[in-house]
Order: sequence, then structure tokens, then C-alpha cells
Amino acid sequence: MSNQDTDLPASPNAAINIGLCGFGTVGQGVWKHLKRDRAELAARLGVPLRIAAISVRDPQRPRAIKLPAKLLRADPLEVATDPAIPIVCELMGGTALARRVTLAALKAGKIVVSANKALICEHGAEIFATARKHGGHFFFEASVAGGVPIIKALREGLIANRFPQIYGILNGTCNYILTQMEERDAPYAEILAEAKALGYAEADEALDVQGWDAAHKAAVLAWLAHGLWVPPSRMIVEGIERVTPADFKNAAQLGYSIKLLAIITRDFSTEELSVKVHPALLPDSDVIASVNGVYNAISVTGDIVGTTLYIGKGAGQDATASAVISDIADAAALLRSGRCARLPSELAPLPSAAAAPSTVKLAPLERIEGRYYLRLTVRDEPGVLARIASVMARHAVSISSVLQTPSEFPDMASLVLTTHQANERAMRDTLRQLARLSIVSGAPLLLRICEFKT
Amino acid sequence: MSNQDTDLPASPNAAINIGLCGFGTVGQGVWKHLKRDRAELAARLGVPLRIAAISVRDPQRPRAIKLPAKLLRADPLEVATDPAIPIVCELMGGTALARRVTLAALKAGKIVVSANKALICEHGAEIFATARKHGGHFFFEASVAGGVPIIKALREGLIANRFPQIYGILNGTCNYILTQMEERDAPYAEILAEAKALGYAEADEALDVQGWDAAHKAAVLAWLAHGLWVPPSRMIVEGIERVTPADFKNAAQLGYSIKLLAIITRDFSTEELSVKVHPALLPDSDVIASVNGVYNAISVTGDIVGTTLYIGKGAGQDATASAVISDIADAAALLRSGRCARLPSELAPLPSAAAAPSTVKLAPLERIEGRYYLRLTVRDEPGVLARIASVMARHAVSISSVLQTPSEFPDMASLVLTTHQANERAMRDTLRQLARLSIVSGAPLLLRICEFKT
Ligand SMILES: NC(=O)c1ccc[n+]([C@@H]2O[C@H](COP(=O)([O-])OP(=O)(O)OC[C@H]3O[C@@H](n4cnc5c(N)ncnc54)[C@H](OP(=O)(O)O)[C@@H]3O)[C@@H](O)[C@H]2O)c1
Ligand SMILES: NC(=O)c1ccc[n+]([C@@H]2O[C@H](COP(=O)([O-])OP(=O)(O)OC[C@H]3O[C@@H](n4cnc5c(N)ncnc54)[C@H](OP(=O)(O)O)[C@@H]3O)[C@@H](O)[C@H]2O)c1
Repeated sequence: MSNQDTDLPASPNAAINIGLCGFGTVGQGVWKHLKRDRAELAARLGVPLRIAAISVRDPQRPRAIKLPAKLLRADPLEVATDPAIPIVCELMGGTALARRVTLAALKAGKIVVSANKALICEHGAEIFATARKHGGHFFFEASVAGGVPIIKALREGLIANRFPQIYGILNGTCNYILTQMEERDAPYAEILAEAKALGYAEADEALDVQGWDAAHKAAVLAWLAHGLWVPPSRMIVEGIERVTPADFKNAAQLGYSIKLLAIITRDFSTEELSVKVHPALLPDSDVIASVNGVYNAISVTGDIVGTTLYIGKGAGQDATASAVISDIADAAALLRSGRCARLPSELAPLPSAAAAPSTVKLAPLERIEGRYYLRLTVRDEPGVLARIASVMARHAVSISSVLQTPSEFPDMASLVLTTHQANERAMRDTLRQLARLSIVSGAPLLLRICEFKT
Repeated sequence: MSNQDTDLPASPNAAINIGLCGFGTVGQGVWKHLKRDRAELAARLGVPLRIAAISVRDPQRPRAIKLPAKLLRADPLEVATDPAIPIVCELMGGTALARRVTLAALKAGKIVVSANKALICEHGAEIFATARKHGGHFFFEASVAGGVPIIKALREGLIANRFPQIYGILNGTCNYILTQMEERDAPYAEILAEAKALGYAEADEALDVQGWDAAHKAAVLAWLAHGLWVPPSRMIVEGIERVTPADFKNAAQLGYSIKLLAIITRDFSTEELSVKVHPALLPDSDVIASVNGVYNAISVTGDIVGTTLYIGKGAGQDATASAVISDIADAAALLRSGRCARLPSELAPLPSAAAAPSTVKLAPLERIEGRYYLRLTVRDEPGVLARIASVMARHAVSISSVLQTPSEFPDMASLVLTTHQANERAMRDTLRQLARLSIVSGAPLLLRICEFKT
């Protein structure tokens, strides 16, 4: 980070200072991406963002990311109460010190950004009351489902709705373990050990595998959707430890998969709410049954919108940083203009476009590549495939598979070819020439094969 | 609507007036739900909302919904320029009059809420420039993917990201037709006729089935994600009319489904963008391949967050109204406080909770119902099932299926029972008693079967 980043604002329009309490997995992700996207975010928000202070347990300890010594603080409360820092990110975890830091910042009227679902679950009522009383704000998009903007969706996008049913996979560690057990027919203990070695599970896995982490997140969602704080002690919470490979086989035989689900249901006639976290047999036809590995998925049924579904990586440095930065951007917009600044009519439409709008251009057809499915009605006679193949070869389009089926027309056959990677220009030229062949009847049908990397 | 709703505001904190230009499918949905949720939205936003004027082509024509005559206008421009109306919803469709109405309202510094993707696609640049110049705003959540808050997700929730890849199903009519063709092995023309009769397709289906509607939506998304207006004439746009039942069979044989996809890709090394709408063979393993019927689905890959996926009903009165109302709420929050008001620390957490926070309560165990999966290790001897079944019967838990498999222990068997609908209390009592039986070894495992209605 250059000197310029840590100077104090020179004018009222100068950078907005951000304090990071905690510089672990999430804190470092926020640092990395805020740094990379600095110019774009500044253009989009109309104001630059600057990380002005970072607190860690031990400022002396050598770290992979080199930080200027003047940024480091040993006491997170110093960051939380620094009058030059209006946005405080609590990224330490735990509930005791995190609570003190959060309340101190809110009492100073600051905006606190948090990824700490355990804290919200335990002290949410106090935190929100404090924010309201002192004119501060508490943002927590990163606390549930990593980078998936589910908090924003529930609170703003679906504001017209009541929510009779919300359910989903809220813990990626459990979903990874269950997925591996199912796919590899392997016992829980073996997969857990592996998950720890790979960093997918914490050294102390209890919070995850016993369902408490998902319960914390369910509490956050239940509060957003229903305005009631439900402590995990009043939920049904069961973990995944007793599920065996045999259960997956039994479930499969009955047409189900097994997922650790959080389920929040409200009956609007009796006004009864229930919040549960437990392993569940989910029918294979449910899209969430095929959400595997470290992904999270949340199905939200609104009484007006119907069911909407949100899927994405539930944790990890980058996905979590994406959510924290979106909260920081909301906070900055609020501070900058005292209004909802991130609207398309006020701001450049997109970070990258704002930073360098003139460089994006439409790709020429030669650069649009993919695999193709080609269906031709051809004369049913020898040598036909050879002639078609040679046209394709001339345009450097290579064939991946051939399927011949009877045609509805007499003496004709339906020929289905798939190609290897080719480009739009070559395919258009190929099509034009194929259509001219006497052995081909009617216009060939071209469909595109899309195998997306995700 | 009572008299009170159409009175002018008596104090600065009185209702915010909303004008509806257009009272067709979407307009009536907005009316219906704004009316139903009035108290809740007012509590949540801190200010009541009131529909103050509605324009239709023919105010004399009798309508299913009875409207007070003084609300009705024949000229939408009158609504757009009425100084007492700060929020104008353009819900007429078309691009000529809609453009004039939109620009007139924006020039007056108003907030325009729109569901009109054709208008945005054709005149977006002019609309946003006008809004910026005159301090107005243009909100358009309903223009893409119905009630799924994808605009908000892209613009705010994922603000930290660049978007190398966005793809999905953006037209529910086409997806309905393709799904039916696939499921019923029926030709395009037959399903189209049926879809028209059911109201799933317009009388003039061209805009939908030729891909233009999806192209309009793709243009909106591409602009949001990349800051470039791409007219459909510069995209690859192909419709679904030539797809036959045989193509589905061929595709299935190769492991694919066929979907009409919109695909927006940007290569950040060459800065080349491509926008395409066409039927695509999608591998069965892609979650979007199993999104059927009138649902939309959008996969958004961000460079930080990874791939996130959004699914929901893409159109229809209610889903679209849900999105329009979320934009109205954003607009009202902006007007009311001049700031981002819909934050949890400032507002009651949820409409229904705000209106009647004390009525929600946790459901007792007797009222938490479902089906259960029970795995017991039992002695492998005659009469065991009878004894277990009688314990269950005593608690009114009825058995749906029984599966017996060998146990890992000698002389024991593993017994898997699924139940019909039962409640948590009965199951807990049952479990306790089963665990006490001498024929049962170890603690029974209880999992829950979840078949969600969506
Ligand atoms: N990791 C994820 O994928 C993820 C996802 C969603 C939400 N979250 C949440 O994000 C928060 C942070 O998680 P993390 O994974 O980034 O944690 P982490 O890697 O353990 O980092 C914690 C950071 O906080 C500092 N810290 C801890 N206790 C402190 C104390 N008593 N005084 C001062 N500093 C202290 C540590 O300082 P040192 O560097 O000196 O040790 C470290 O920099 C947690 O609430 C977690 O639940 C995490
Ligand atoms: N329907 C959906 O599911 C859906 C979903 C997403 C987006 N949208 C978009 O929402 C918009 C409205 O769609 P809709 O389905 O509600 O349309 P609609 O049912 O056809 O209703 C159109 C309304 O606008 C009025 N109108 C039309 N032309 C007018 C004119 N020249 N002057 C004055 N009033 C005029 C009509 O008046 P009369 O009542 O007197 O005929 C009618 O009330 C369109 O842009 C559409 O693309 C619709």
C-alpha cells in the first residue's frame, strides 16, 4: 500500500477511512480485493475507499501480507473508536470482544460491517437497538451464505412478500462432508479427517457438524423474515455425525438425497413459527438435492413472488470478502451522499466499465467459440457422411460424434453431428455450404452445446 | 380504496403519491399487493404509500377492478408530469409512448419504476442520461427475471466483482414450451397453441419464441455488468421455432437438455464481449438444465465470489408486482429520508413483523409435522417388526415403508422405516420407547423427510 493510502483526507471529498478489526482469512480477502478494485470502486462510488487501520492479536507476528507498521493496532477498540474511521469491519469472530468492539463503534454512530453470525445470533437484539439509538448502522451480508446476496434479497428485493417457507443448505462444511460420503460411499470420520486436512473443516469441527453454525445463520434469516430472535436453544438442531453411508443407500433407494437443511416455516393462520436445522431426506427432484460440495443454497418462498432460489459458495476468503465489500460500498454510499447513491442514474454502471469504459468491445464472430450440434436431413445413400465431413474439414470444423436416425421423409435420413471446439464464423460458412449440397434437403439446424465452467 | 387514500398529503410526513401508467396485468398486480400490504409497508418504510393516479387507454371501459373515477386518467403524460406524484410506474409496454412518459417524468426529477425491457434496451442510454441530468432516477428490477432480485444482486450485492460469464434462462414462455416438448415428446406447434390457450404465450408470440424478449433482457444485464449497450442486432439471436422433439431425443442420448439461453461473456484479457441468445444443449449436470416450466434462472460468475445462481418465476402478475413494489419501496425510502432508509437498524425488520410483532410465536412440537426416516439396529428374529410397529401405532405414527438390510453386527439387522405425516412430539415419544426395547440395540437414528411445496 502506498503512502497516499494512509494519509488523512485532505478535502471533504477525500477517501473514506475503513478500519479492519481482524486480519485473518476474511480480513485479508477484504484487503486484497479492495486494493485490486480500488480505482473501479472509487469511480463507481464517487469516493475512494482507504483502509486506515487494522487490528490483530499480535502486531509483531510476521505475516504473509506485508502491512505498513503504522496501520497495525493491537487493540481493536482503538480502531472502533477512532473518530477518523467511520466504517469498522468486525472480522475477528467470537462473541465477547467482538460484541464490545461492535457496540463501541455503533455508540459512536459508525457503520459496522460484520461477517459474525454467532455474534448476531447471540446479541442481535442489543446490536440493532444500539445502532438505532445512536444513529449507527450494522451491515451483515457476509454472515449468511458467503457471497450470495441473500440478506439484500430478503430485506429489499422481496420486501413486498411474507415468507411462509425458507429452507436451504447454510453450512458448506457439512455439505462437503455429506456429498463426499454419498459420492464415495465413505464413512463420516474418514471424510471429516480429509476435510480438515484440506482446510474445508475447522480444527474444532463441532460448531459446523453439530449444526450450530447453520443454526446461527438460520436465526439471522428468521429474524430478517419474521422479526423474531430465535435462539438455537429453542430450535430443533441436529448434526450430521450419526449419518452413515448406509443411510445414503437407503435414501437413494427411496428416491432421496441427504442434506443438512435449515428450515424456517411460518403458518400465517396460526402465526406459529418453527426454525429447524437437521439432516433431511430431500427428493432428487428438488434442485437443492443436487447442490453439492461447499455450495450453499437457499429457497425462499414469498407469498407474492412464489419460490426463488439462491445458490453460491457459502464461505471462503473470496466469497466472504465479496459480501463484506458490498456492505462497505453500501456504507460508503450512505456516508458520501447521505443517500442511496448506488443507483444507475447517479453512478457509472459498473466498476470495470467506469474505470475504462472505452476498452470493452464486441467480440468478432471468429472469437466466439464453442461446440455445435448440427442436424441435417440427407439422402440415405453411401458416401453422404464423407461429403459432409469434407465440407466441415475445409472450414477446420472437426466432428466429435455422429448419430444417424430415420427421417420422416422417404429415402432420407436424419444426421446429427456434434463438433469439437469451432467458431461462429467457421460454422456459418460451413452451414451455408452444406445447405447448397444436393444430398442435403432443407436448411440444416444448428444448436450450440454449452458446457459452462463454474 | 377509501377516500382517505386519494386525499392530498396533509403534512410533510403524509403518504407518498404513486402514479401508475398502465393498469394491465402488471399494474393490477401492483395495485392489489400495495393495497394488501399497505400497513406493513408503511410501518417498514416509515411513510404510507398511496396510488394517486392511474392512466389507461380507455377510462370509460368497465374493468374487473373497480377504481374511483377520480383516480383515472386518459393521458399517461398527465400522470408523469403531475407535480404531486413523485413516483411514476410505467407499466404500459411499447417503446414510443412509454419513452415519452418516462423522459417527461425524469425531466421533472421524478423516480420512474419500469418493467419495460424493450424500452430500456432501445432507449436505455437516453433514459439514464436524462435521469442523471435532471436528478431523477430510473428503477427497473421487474424488467429481468420477474420477482428474482437479479438487478439488485448484480449492481449492489456483487459490486466487488467483474463478470466474465453470465448465462441463463430469461424467457419463461420459451422455457415452458421447451419443457413441454421434452416431457411430452410433442411438436412445437402443438405446445405453442396450448401455451396460448393457457395464457403462457402472447397472441403474437414472435417476441418470445424468436428470442427477442430474452435479447432485450440480455441487453439490460450486459449493460449492468459491462457498461455497454448492445442492441439485439449486434447479438447472435436465434429462436426455438425449429427445435423438434427428435432434437430432444438426440440431445438426451448425448447427455444434454435443450434450453433457450442468454449468454454474456467477457474476456478480460482481450476485453471482448459477446452477447448471445439461442437454444443450447446444456449438460444434465448443469443445475439450469433442470429448471423447467415458466421459471427463469441466471448463473452469474464473478471473479471474486465465484458462480452464484438465481432462480424464480420469470413473469406473471404477482412475481412482476413483487419486483415493481421493491423498486417503489427503494424509491419511497430515497424520498422519505433522502437516504438509504431500508436498513435494519433504522426500520422494523419485516413488514408483517412490523405490523403485528407480538403475534408471531414459536410453534410447539405437536405442530411441527413431517415424515420421518427411522433406522434401527434390531435383533434378527421373528416378531421384531410387529413389536416396533405397535410402539409406533401407540403414538399414532403410521408406517409408510419398511426396508430391512443386513447389519454390521452378527444376529442383528438394520431396519429402516419411513412414516406418514407425524409430529415431533409423537416421534420423540416413539423414539424414547423404541430405544428401551430389548430387541433394539443402540440409539435409533431419526432423519426427517422434507418434500417442500414450491
Ligand atoms: N472464513 C470464512 O470463510 C468465513 C465465512 C463467513 C464468515 N466468517 C466469519 O468471519 C469472521 C472472521 O473469520 P476468519 O475466518 O477470518 O477468522 P481468522 O482467520 O481466525 O482471523 C481472525 C482475526 O482476528 C484477530 N483476532 C482474533 N481474536 C482477537 C483478539 N482477541 N484481539 C485482537 N484480534 C483478534 C486475529 O488476529 P491474529 O492475526 O493476530 O491471530 C485474526 O487476524 C468470523 O466471525 C467468522 O465466523 C468467516
Ligand atoms: N405481464 C408480465 O408478466 C410482465 C412481466 C415482466 C414485465 N412486463 C412488462 O410490463 C409492462 C406491462 O405489461 P402488462 O402485461 O401489464 O401489459 P398489459 O396487460 O397489456 O397492460 C397495458 C396497460 O397499459 C395501458 N396502455 C397501453 N397502451 C396505452 C396507451 N397508448 N395509452 C394509455 N394507456 C395505454 C393499457 O390500457 P387499457 O387497460 O385501457 O388497455 C393497460 O392498462 C410491459 O412493458 C411488459 O413488457 C410484463
